[in-house]
Amino acid sequence: MNILVAQSGGPTAAINASLAGVISRAAEEWPDGRIFGGCNGIQGILEEHIVDLKETFCPGGKPDETLLHRLEVTPAMYLGSCRYRMKNFEEDPSDYEVFFGIVEKLGIDAFFYIGGNDSMDTVQMIGDYAQAHDKPLRVVGVPKTIDNDLMGIDHTPGFGSAARFVATEVREIALDTDIYLNDSVVIIEIMGRDAGWLTAASALARMDGSTAPHLIYLPELGFDIDDFLRKVKARLFRYHHVVVCVSEGLKDVNGDYLLADRSRVDKFGHTALAGTGGYLRDQVVNRIGCKVRCVELNVAQRAAGHCASGTDLQESRRLGSEAVGLAAAGKTSVMATLTRTSDDPYTVTYSSVDVHEVADRVKTVPLSWITPDETDVTEEMIRYLQPLIQGDPQTPVKDGLPDYLRMQK
Amino acid sequence: MNILVAQSGGPTAAINASLAGVISRAAEEWPDGRIFGGCNGIQGILEEHIVDLKETFCPGGKPDETLLHRLEVTPAMYLGSCRYRMKNFEEDPSDYEVFFGIVEKLGIDAFFYIGGNDSMDTVQMIGDYAQAHDKPLRVVGVPKTIDNDLMGIDHTPGFGSAARFVATEVREIALDTDIYLNDSVVIIEIMGRDAGWLTAASALARMDGSTAPHLIYLPELGFDIDDFLRKVKARLFRYHHVVVCVSEGLKDVNGDYLLADRSRVDKFGHTALAGTGGYLRDQVVNRIGCKVRCVELNVAQRAAGHCASGTDLQESRRLGSEAVGLAAAGKTSVMATLTRTSDDPYTVTYSSVDVHEVADRVKTVPLSWITPDETDVTEEMIRYLQPLIQGDPQTPVKDGLPDYLRMQK
Repeated sequence: MNILVAQSGGPTAAINASLAGVISRAAEEWPDGRIFGGCNGIQGILEEHIVDLKETFCPGGKPDETLLHRLEVTPAMYLGSCRYRMKNFEEDPSDYEVFFGIVEKLGIDAFFYIGGNDSMDTVQMIGDYAQAHDKPLRVVGVPKTIDNDLMGIDHTPGFGSAARFVATEVREIALDTDIYLNDSVVIIEIMGRDAGWLTAASALARMDGSTAPHLIYLPELGFDIDDFLRKVKARLFRYHHVVVCVSEGLKDVNGDYLLADRSRVDKFGHTALAGTGGYLRDQVVNRIGCKVRCVELNVAQRAAGHCASGTDLQESRRLGSEAVGLAAAGKTSVMATLTRTSDDPYTVTYSSVDVHEVADRVKTVPLSWITPDETDVTEEMIRYLQPLIQGDPQTPVKDGLPDYLRMQK
Repeated sequence: MNILVAQSGGPTAAINASLAGVISRAAEEWPDGRIFGGCNGIQGILEEHIVDLKETFCPGGKPDETLLHRLEVTPAMYLGSCRYRMKNFEEDPSDYEVFFGIVEKLGIDAFFYIGGNDSMDTVQMIGDYAQAHDKPLRVVGVPKTIDNDLMGIDHTPGFGSAARFVATEVREIALDTDIYLNDSVVIIEIMGRDAGWLTAASALARMDGSTAPHLIYLPELGFDIDDFLRKVKARLFRYHHVVVCVSEGLKDVNGDYLLADRSRVDKFGHTALAGTGGYLRDQVVNRIGCKVRCVELNVAQRAAGHCASGTDLQESRRLGSEAVGLAAAGKTSVMATLTRTSDDPYTVTYSSVDVHEVADRVKTVPLSWITPDETDVTEEMIRYLQPLIQGDPQTPVKDGLPDYLRMQK
């Protein structure tokens, strides 16, 4: 069997681990098969921008484990990405006709798409088209997103690494904030437009004797600025140095984004967000008047390979491998998934889920995992998060820096 | 002999390593002596906010190496900091009288102050007062600053760790930037108001086949916005994804800060800076019109213990230890220093420098280490930087996160 694999959506520290899993398992399952990589997701594939991954990663047919390990620990997308939305094929089948033309020309038997909600939508549509048009292609999704907001999976590949970076940074920024005598507030803006999982991970930053972060605001609950300022004031009185973690996607009590920039809407209909943390900083400066700093963790959250979770990389690679197993077993229109069977000791099992149950849906934080005062998470959330940030990624180091792998162009 | 040690100025990932060095060497030199820690620098000492470090770190008189190693790897200041400026004692001796009153009450024979330029000014003034008033106190400075702008030393403790973090983040952000088909620019704002050392370290981010960062702007040279936009455009045409690293302290051709907020000036007369990166992002959006993102590395640069340089921590600890050795040898009004004797293999020797040669002066990047086109650094700079970011700090990990040490309050 010959396969085609591509990556899509926003980067994570673990998405290349899934790619490594697809490559090594496919080389093992089908020693005579070819392994094609589609550059820049479906968008690049439609332009026939395709590379030979077997040639690069399996010289002489054998997987080069040293190279695959470098791929595994490299953040962002080795194959590049896209945010391309295919039209519904009943309305406009042209993209699908081009896609299946290429699939048939290259003799591809299985297509693997590594991505988040929007990418699973693409998997679903290509799978549906194949079924409706009697195409034998097996279409399998491999999950990833730092937002952890995919349905049908306990937690998403990429999330554990992002959570580890967020918790580490918040712990370090809390130490940094604590050193002067004057009262101060630091507001840390964390990614997550509709789901607060990553912001919730800031709670892991607490350590012996340190209560930071003192306030955690998730987008699942309506945000009230007056109540926020009252709480910051009360924490300042008690702790003098206050660390506040906020999701970029905070919404007011009407469910509208606090800081939506309505002039910018992307292809998937997502409104751009601008500066929730900066807005809150200005409010604290003007209405409380102490020293305030806003820190946006920004793209580092999704690219911090140097702080990746070993558990996350291992699971991400395994999910890539399992996806190949699913195709080998004849499955299609599914996403490879994992189910947690125990928190302590932490164990998971691997299986698959119908991609129709995943595509275009969002898994938010259960309200019961947010404390009644709406500014912290419960012990249940901590137990859920804790296993996901464990383990060193064993990133090879060269000249003092992570030795990442980049496609030679 | 009894000693007093304190920390001052901005945090670094290595300043607690110097504190660990002072504690362990003092415990060794003077088994019967006491080791006092001044909280929040000279400001806290004047309020007699003093703790017993020997009790904490040397239970039963023996240094607890496990605890000292946790202290060594913990970023920011264990003892807290201040930005307090003592007046010239000829104008107003009151602070000095309070300080020496406490020194005499506690029977302190040596005072160690770990800090940067402004802190060395304090060391100088206390040393001068002691000499003028026949006080037997030995006063020794221990250098630190992520800015690397101290005179009288090859490079400053804390700089190597900050440089390692900056280079790592820039490498990761470059990978993140490279994934889409559309042209894009990312502007990374790096700390350093008058010296471009840390921004220069972004050049280490380059790896096989990647030319990012494509443009590096240091505050040592006048910045021209039209020339900048021309260069960004040219790099976009060639590379499509352009990474620009800029110092927060960029100045125009008249030597004025590009983004000074003149309404805010601190006690040392330093003007506050606001948003050089954001300003440049807006200029690129308005005048070039491609996708642009601004990333401020922010306080993480000075607090990223998880990405510290092992070499930096080791040297910082050794400088704390050497400072105690200088006091034991009867020296005063000096700063412990190191001199590089070879780049490859990298070797240094330890000695001391008269603090009058260090205080209130700034070591900027030599213009000969900036390339003629003014947007990159030379091979000489790379040779200088390379050894400083080597080595893993061996940070103990607990529950997946760095196990830092915090003073129990």
